[in-house]
Amino acid sequence: MDKNEQEKYWHTSSHILAHAVQRLFPDIKLGTGPAIEKGFYYDFYRKNPFTPEDLKLIEKAMSSIIKENLSVEPVKKNKEEARAILKDEPFKLEILEALEGEQAIFYKQGNFIDLCQGPHLSSTGQVKHFKLLSVAASYWRGDEKRESMQRIYGISFPEKQELEEYLKFIEEAKERDHRTLGTKLDLFSMHPEFGSGLIYWHPKGSIIRKLVEDFWKEIHLKNGYELVYTPHIADIALWDKSGHTGFYKENMFAPMVTEAKTFQLKPMNCPFHILIYNNRLRSYRELPIRWAELGTVYRYEKQGVLHGLLRVRGFTQDDAHIFCTEEQAEEEVIKVLDLVCFFLKKFGFADYRICLSTRPEKFVGTPENWQKATTALENALKGRNMNYEIDPGEGVFYGPKIDIKVKDCLNREWQCSTIQVDFNIPERFDVKYTGNEGDFKTPILIHRAIFGSIERFLGILIEHYKGSFPFWLAPEQLRILPISDRHMPYAEKTAKDIEPHFRVQVDRRNEKINRKIRDAEEEKVPYMLILGDKEEAGGTLSLRKHKTGMVGTFSAEKLIKMLREESGQP
Amino acid sequence: MDKNEQEKYWHTSSHILAHAVQRLFPDIKLGTGPAIEKGFYYDFYRKNPFTPEDLKLIEKAMSSIIKENLSVEPVKKNKEEARAILKDEPFKLEILEALEGEQAIFYKQGNFIDLCQGPHLSSTGQVKHFKLLSVAASYWRGDEKRESMQRIYGISFPEKQELEEYLKFIEEAKERDHRTLGTKLDLFSMHPEFGSGLIYWHPKGSIIRKLVEDFWKEIHLKNGYELVYTPHIADIALWDKSGHTGFYKENMFAPMVTEAKTFQLKPMNCPFHILIYNNRLRSYRELPIRWAELGTVYRYEKQGVLHGLLRVRGFTQDDAHIFCTEEQAEEEVIKVLDLVCFFLKKFGFADYRICLSTRPEKFVGTPENWQKATTALENALKGRNMNYEIDPGEGVFYGPKIDIKVKDCLNREWQCSTIQVDFNIPERFDVKYTGNEGDFKTPILIHRAIFGSIERFLGILIEHYKGSFPFWLAPEQLRILPISDRHMPYAEKTAKDIEPHFRVQVDRRNEKINRKIRDAEEEKVPYMLILGDKEEAGGTLSLRKHKTGMVGTFSAEKLIKMLREESGQP
Repeated sequence: MDKNEQEKYWHTSSHILAHAVQRLFPDIKLGTGPAIEKGFYYDFYRKNPFTPEDLKLIEKAMSSIIKENLSVEPVKKNKEEARAILKDEPFKLEILEALEGEQAIFYKQGNFIDLCQGPHLSSTGQVKHFKLLSVAASYWRGDEKRESMQRIYGISFPEKQELEEYLKFIEEAKERDHRTLGTKLDLFSMHPEFGSGLIYWHPKGSIIRKLVEDFWKEIHLKNGYELVYTPHIADIALWDKSGHTGFYKENMFAPMVTEAKTFQLKPMNCPFHILIYNNRLRSYRELPIRWAELGTVYRYEKQGVLHGLLRVRGFTQDDAHIFCTEEQAEEEVIKVLDLVCFFLKKFGFADYRICLSTRPEKFVGTPENWQKATTALENALKGRNMNYEIDPGEGVFYGPKIDIKVKDCLNREWQCSTIQVDFNIPERFDVKYTGNEGDFKTPILIHRAIFGSIERFLGILIEHYKGSFPFWLAPEQLRILPISDRHMPYAEKTAKDIEPHFRVQVDRRNEKINRKIRDAEEEKVPYMLILGDKEEAGGTLSLRKHKTGMVGTFSAEKLIKMLREESGQP
Repeated sequence: MDKNEQEKYWHTSSHILAHAVQRLFPDIKLGTGPAIEKGFYYDFYRKNPFTPEDLKLIEKAMSSIIKENLSVEPVKKNKEEARAILKDEPFKLEILEALEGEQAIFYKQGNFIDLCQGPHLSSTGQVKHFKLLSVAASYWRGDEKRESMQRIYGISFPEKQELEEYLKFIEEAKERDHRTLGTKLDLFSMHPEFGSGLIYWHPKGSIIRKLVEDFWKEIHLKNGYELVYTPHIADIALWDKSGHTGFYKENMFAPMVTEAKTFQLKPMNCPFHILIYNNRLRSYRELPIRWAELGTVYRYEKQGVLHGLLRVRGFTQDDAHIFCTEEQAEEEVIKVLDLVCFFLKKFGFADYRICLSTRPEKFVGTPENWQKATTALENALKGRNMNYEIDPGEGVFYGPKIDIKVKDCLNREWQCSTIQVDFNIPERFDVKYTGNEGDFKTPILIHRAIFGSIERFLGILIEHYKGSFPFWLAPEQLRILPISDRHMPYAEKTAKDIEPHFRVQVDRRNEKINRKIRDAEEEKVPYMLILGDKEEAGGTLSLRKHKTGMVGTFSAEKLIKMLREESGQP
């Protein structure tokens, strides 16, 4: 099915859903029911929430409606007639009244009629295999102050196999859900009663975060970047100057207003790096300047779109700004692309999709400069033989950009890395350097992020690895499991030997060895050392690998050497 | 002189200053002129600022007043008479009107009379050796909305040698001023037009900050701490619960008020760590829990008290919270004391003063618990044979504390480390653990910081080291100085050899070698490598040490080994 066909298919499925609900619960009020990126939903207003049993009944009724193979037909009405039809549907009436013109289009199947623009399949029988997936609360029109609705999600396909594969995919995605794994593995928490979309990293999650951040810093320093640290707030005057209060206000937290001054939490790091740049005169000899910061920014995302670590209100950008001459731009972009590939590979992402976004209708800077910058980006991609798509007109108002979307092991796409040229900020802040003839020139400013956001990237990693982090990232790399109490001293001694090299814990509980192994497997510890009489007598360690089983018996020295090699430590 | 004598001495000196100014500039209006911690000042209202020449004239006039040896006498007046005396002194009148009662005390010397409580020396001739130090702008009554005054600072001593020593100290302190060195060495900047008291770390300063932070984290992890990361903001509800909106509001930034929610920038990290603790049930087996965070907090300090890195509005606490049982408290405090000593020693602070602050009049918790906690702190100090003073009643309302003030190389004291027991937060947040009989118990909560604030500690370090950071902390550890252009290839090759081990730069400028050496000395680079014909021919490196001169000639391999040893690298 192409995209249009698919939309018709799912939209018709949502009408079948609403039709079925109306048959079973005649008092229900209808909201809206569109096709979505994957599947469909319908919103209903009803006092009691739908139960799993309700969903089963609804599925049955849907099957009947499909079997009846009712024809689905558009019906035109004038507003007067439309009002009469919808007299018991207050939400539909609200939509009707907002419509322009005197005509309203309905779609009708059997005795079900819905205010709807279509298009639809021509009969209900064309929907073959479907499944209702979940119920969730939603607000009418997404507005927290309006009625609370119940949204039923579903999916449908022409082929049974497609449905089965999709249900398997959902099941797998559910098992990988970073929110569930985050709690189970004690990695992080959120405390929405004290602010939604804000992440509290627990010790185990913090180890992973620190390792990723340390690695990021080390690689950046090796690649000619310098680090900077900047504040989280600035006087509103800075955001007026940068244009954020004009162009970006709806994404920002409310200002902190005092009698004397107004401060603003930062939604971006750029203006701060510019202030450091402008702190003294820069010469062409200093360029390229590459400044990187793990800068935590705050953006006021709507409550409804927040989602675990993937969509938050406070996140740490792995940000960098490159100031370079026009001549250096292409090479700098190539270097960034190389860095992106290096990092993505390190975390096991081999596949990605690259988009080059060009000049939109509204833009700052001259068309010539846009052309130059776009060419530089394009040449860089060609220089590295990278396939890319062009998103015409999808650049930001301040410059063209390259977006890199990684594919995880479920083939889901995640927007992470971005490389953007900016014509706006250099102009607004009068960013200059002195050329070799003492003349003042404007540098090219490149914004770039590799992970995009540390929080989001860690969320993706949790799902990608299903919580089983590779050895170098595992919060607990090794767990020592003494078979019984009398092996505790040997276990403690072994822990002491290993501690300087790896993150190791001893399971000191008074539990059977099988229980200890099961728990270590559950907690996804990459390696276990089973220590009993035999090991103690021989001064050896029996190594068990997560999800694999026994590996063999080693001396402590040999084990350390082997694991150091695995983790790429020198 | 004891403290009272000293105050009289400096207070009388300030009257002599005002007297002299009045003689020279009869139109001037008097502000106030107290003795301060070190010396005295007097505030004057005058259109034109005082020039260095003015100060010289004033010093001359002061010498005359001292020579005249005028007797200094208190004079009582009723308000009516006082008003008449002060009719041309609007600032003094303002003070007079605010006085309670019908009496006003003046001090008089010759024809100079000042509204003043005293006490004073009995004659001007008792002031022996003095010096005016500086002029600075100040606001009348410290209020930005009031008149701008000119404050003249001075110092005086009975003995000439004391004055000379003090002037030398000032000179030395000025040379060590971290604000001057921060700019000169390109370490950090501030941008008060976009918010005062907020620090922007430049690449060189960021290297130092990163090294200090990495070291801090490494040592904490080795000492049984775990790291956490928490947000910079929370819903105001959290600060209501913690008591900050009640007890701490004046130190907090203005809230971010939106229709739906009010958010507050964090002035402290504690409540966030508590939320992580309370995220699940904790058992006595898990205690002690030690959670550390480099948490950046924001406090709305008054504009007038801000001072470089030492007093800022945004700073990073090297914070940790220890949750332990009552029985563990003393040992935990000992461990913190050991850690404090370890860190202070690492940065060359050998001398410090320790204060134990006990229960204040207003307090939360029971007297018994206060006694236990104070005893635990005291026993820990005794256990480590540490000398300490008791500050009776100077504990925070929530618990007793130990403060550790380091002495720098100018013998100035800086409050850095603090160890505090908290009875407030565990109660407010119902913090519990299950004891070994399944009963719920309240843990002891210890707040502690070693540096206090990263920004402040780095400010102290800059002054302590006078910008000459030890090898391991120096942003640029080695600079390679080719004697002429033809030695550039050898210089670049050498840089490549050294890069994997140390932070090295090549001076590629077309300058004479002496100029290159002078600049490297100015920029306080610990080591220079001078490379010329001789070195190139022999494949050797001539090493020069900052402020010391030539050390000798080495092979690259030997040099690296030697410097690794110096920096304590394995």
